[in-house]
Amino acid sequence: MVCTVEIYEKPQLNNPILIEGLPGIGFVANIAALHLISELKAKRFGEIVSASFQDFASTTETGGFSSPVNELYYWKRQDGDRDLIIWHGNSQALTTFGQYELCGKVLDIVQELGCRSIISIGGFKKEEVQPVPAIYSAATDEESLQEALGLGTRIMVGHIFGIAGLLIGLGGLKGFRGFALLVDTLGMYPDANATRYALTSLGKYLNLNIDMSKLESVAEKTKRTLESFGLIRNIVEEKKKEEEQMRWFI
Amino acid sequence: MVCTVEIYEKPQLNNPILIEGLPGIGFVANIAALHLISELKAKRFGEIVSASFQDFASTTETGGFSSPVNELYYWKRQDGDRDLIIWHGNSQALTTFGQYELCGKVLDIVQELGCRSIISIGGFKKEEVQPVPAIYSAATDEESLQEALGLGTRIMVGHIFGIAGLLIGLGGLKGFRGFALLVDTLGMYPDANATRYALTSLGKYLNLNIDMSKLESVAEKTKRTLESFGLIRNIVEEKKKEEEQMRWFI
Amino acid sequence: MVCTVEIYEKPQLNNPILIEGLPGIGFVANIAALHLISELKAKRFGEIVSASFQDFASTTETGGFSSPVNELYYWKRQDGDRDLIIWHGNSQALTTFGQYELCGKVLDIVQELGCRSIISIGGFKKEEVQPVPAIYSAATDEESLQEALGLGTRIMVGHIFGIAGLLIGLGGLKGFRGFALLVDTLGMYPDANATRYALTSLGKYLNLNIDMSKLESVAEKTKRTLESFGLIRNIVEEKKKEEEQMRWFI
Amino acid sequence: MVCTVEIYEKPQLNNPILIEGLPGIGFVANIAALHLISELKAKRFGEIVSASFQDFASTTETGGFSSPVNELYYWKRQDGDRDLIIWHGNSQALTTFGQYELCGKVLDIVQELGCRSIISIGGFKKEEVQPVPAIYSAATDEESLQEALGLGTRIMVGHIFGIAGLLIGLGGLKGFRGFALLVDTLGMYPDANATRYALTSLGKYLNLNIDMSKLESVAEKTKRTLESFGLIRNIVEEKKKEEEQMRWFI
Repeated sequence: MVCTVEIYEKPQLNNPILIEGLPGIGFVANIAALHLISELKAKRFGEIVSASFQDFASTTETGGFSSPVNELYYWKRQDGDRDLIIWHGNSQALTTFGQYELCGKVLDIVQELGCRSIISIGGFKKEEVQPVPAIYSAATDEESLQEALGLGTRIMVGHIFGIAGLLIGLGGLKGFRGFALLVDTLGMYPDANATRYALTSLGKYLNLNIDMSKLESVAEKTKRTLESFGLIRNIVEEKKKEEEQMRWFI
Repeated sequence: MVCTVEIYEKPQLNNPILIEGLPGIGFVANIAALHLISELKAKRFGEIVSASFQDFASTTETGGFSSPVNELYYWKRQDGDRDLIIWHGNSQALTTFGQYELCGKVLDIVQELGCRSIISIGGFKKEEVQPVPAIYSAATDEESLQEALGLGTRIMVGHIFGIAGLLIGLGGLKGFRGFALLVDTLGMYPDANATRYALTSLGKYLNLNIDMSKLESVAEKTKRTLESFGLIRNIVEEKKKEEEQMRWFI
Repeated sequence: MVCTVEIYEKPQLNNPILIEGLPGIGFVANIAALHLISELKAKRFGEIVSASFQDFASTTETGGFSSPVNELYYWKRQDGDRDLIIWHGNSQALTTFGQYELCGKVLDIVQELGCRSIISIGGFKKEEVQPVPAIYSAATDEESLQEALGLGTRIMVGHIFGIAGLLIGLGGLKGFRGFALLVDTLGMYPDANATRYALTSLGKYLNLNIDMSKLESVAEKTKRTLESFGLIRNIVEEKKKEEEQMRWFI
Repeated sequence: MVCTVEIYEKPQLNNPILIEGLPGIGFVANIAALHLISELKAKRFGEIVSASFQDFASTTETGGFSSPVNELYYWKRQDGDRDLIIWHGNSQALTTFGQYELCGKVLDIVQELGCRSIISIGGFKKEEVQPVPAIYSAATDEESLQEALGLGTRIMVGHIFGIAGLLIGLGGLKGFRGFALLVDTLGMYPDANATRYALTSLGKYLNLNIDMSKLESVAEKTKRTLESFGLIRNIVEEKKKEEEQMRWFI
């Protein structure tokens, strides 16, 4: 199967921009995406399960399941500006191979919907962070870079790990254009403040006035979801290598 | 190959329910499935070998081979109630990827037979267990949850690892409905007592009077099979590696 | 690619038997297969490279390359008895997944040539071995078992790892019939004596008088080949788990 | 996806020779390929991203991304001699499986362009290297070997790891003809001197006068690229894990 994709609807979108928001350093992208979905009342149109996600289910206090999944939402703007596709989820893939598969699959899906633009969001892990964190960018091309720098970002120098980096790299190869926004964060907890600055830059780019009043509660919700998946503890404890092992549990 | 599937027969089934019974904590599901197959004289209609199973054969005292394999059985009821599909085996897959593949393959097979309902069984590992163990449930949807709670189960809170969790998670995404039954167990040996309570709840749900008189001998048989596969030792030695290493960075 | 297969010829064969001879404990199967190929002047008709083999080439003293490869040979008998297919190679696959892929591929190939019978050969590692080593067998079915026991073998009890076990297990699932012959060996070096007894039993089964006079030199040749692949040392040092790692070498 | 391939152009080539130049020991092939591309003004016609590359992007000081990628270039000669295809990149695959996939994919691509000849370049790691390093060769066939020896190379004895070995091994199986050129190097840094000798031999074979005056600066550029990918450190820290763990029994 590799990736199981369920697309509920093929929306007609106006030159849409894909915004990536999977869990990562500081969970900046994850909070930002969930906040956008919530504020814009974006509509879910697809779900993706990868064979490279963890194979467990996390049960909720009301008896439901929460399984590792990625979701695609769209938002059709009424003001004639470009529509959005938002890629949210509770998981990245466990393996490099799975990350490529997942990212390639999402790019295929959004390309079919006419999307040629991508923005990935991330945290840039620092030992110390100022109250107004710096934002960095890197881009698939010179024009996209100038757009990102025009938002007040600085040029990122270093490595961008995971889906945030892969999306731009693999997307660029496939002819997508766009940039990554990376905000200074301590990276140890879901960072609402870093997310606020990421969303401010993003809103400027999208000509979108994003109400931030509920951001803290969205960050709290993200924290609870990720804790139930053991991700927050794992990120903090992170040092281990991926390896396959015998795991016989129900 | 990934999964090699041999289907011997495509039975005509009446709105069948899939019951998962692979080896896991306390081997509750494994004993329960074997007991059902034995008591109901369920008929084997398919075998599955995954490239993610172990690559060895275990020979028996009579010179035969026992290889890692999963088997599908069906039972057609005479009383007009819903038929059963029972998923039994001596192995789960060794890797997360293999687990998804295996689970996806079984869901595809049973869906072709008109199955839209799933029940997974499991042990819930506890340090201490009462003579009458508690049973927990979690479900793909509210209606299924109410059915499970109606059997006297409590809401499960926590993680459900392996096929038992994956079946509900992946099945739910694919439109199946159902629940997991998880029984308190020490988890260190094939637990006939826990299985008895799982089967009692299951029987109540299925309107099925299950004779338990041979349950101990089925548990003993399951123990011998799993020992020959080295699984019992593995479970005991298992150093709580259930938390897969995360490598998530933005 | 997974497996790259090159079939040079599709021979017309008379109810052929597949004999497996990849490197393993004591290299019994590997020597036996090479000896048969050499004595019978069997003809190579196919080559298989798996993406799960090692990714290196071993150069020879004459400037040629020897890469990890499996080869298929056939031998058409003149006496009207059943023809043979011999599966020889310098490598098994590095991963469980690759072993299944490789074994499944070979079974597909020989099935197309009308083969429904399989024999795998192996060493059975012992701390101490008598000059006349014991031979054990295990079989896909009762009739095959009786044939193997009729050759003077005893019933094998235990695990058969690697391709030798997988061939019988996976083959049995796919409807092949046959048995494994496992000879006592210290397993530390290419064991010509164990191979002699394996070939004697095999010859009896095949109604074939195998000249053993060049067996020592074939064992020596096998030893050189495997040393150039680092296999002999690796087998001896064997304790490591498979894991993937960064390997940047030319 | 496994490998994502983007072919921009299908050039008409005259009996082309594929020259492999991925990063490896001493980065000899990598520098050589980049130098050829630069000197010959070879034209890029394709890009390949493998799901077995690392999943990150390395940002540049100008805000661009550099992702793990392989590139194919061609050079059409004006003198009627054979054209070249140059395989350059900043990455080999992380896994054995990925290496086979990548190599198989490139061979498929170049075969479609009429290519049947391959040359791989590499460093041969030594504790000590003379100012005029020795060059070794190994070949797919006797005729190719004689051609390589005619360039003043010696017969290589030992293992050729990674793509350089795989290309010859897998290529040979697929009917390609050619040889590997391996130059003595300490292997700890991008070795311009070793590359010079590799290019001299290669130029002799190709009847090509290669201007070496800018070789040092190409080596420096290669060094910067690889440092940004963390490869140089990895090579140095590499604990001789070139021997993959064998798990071979019976």
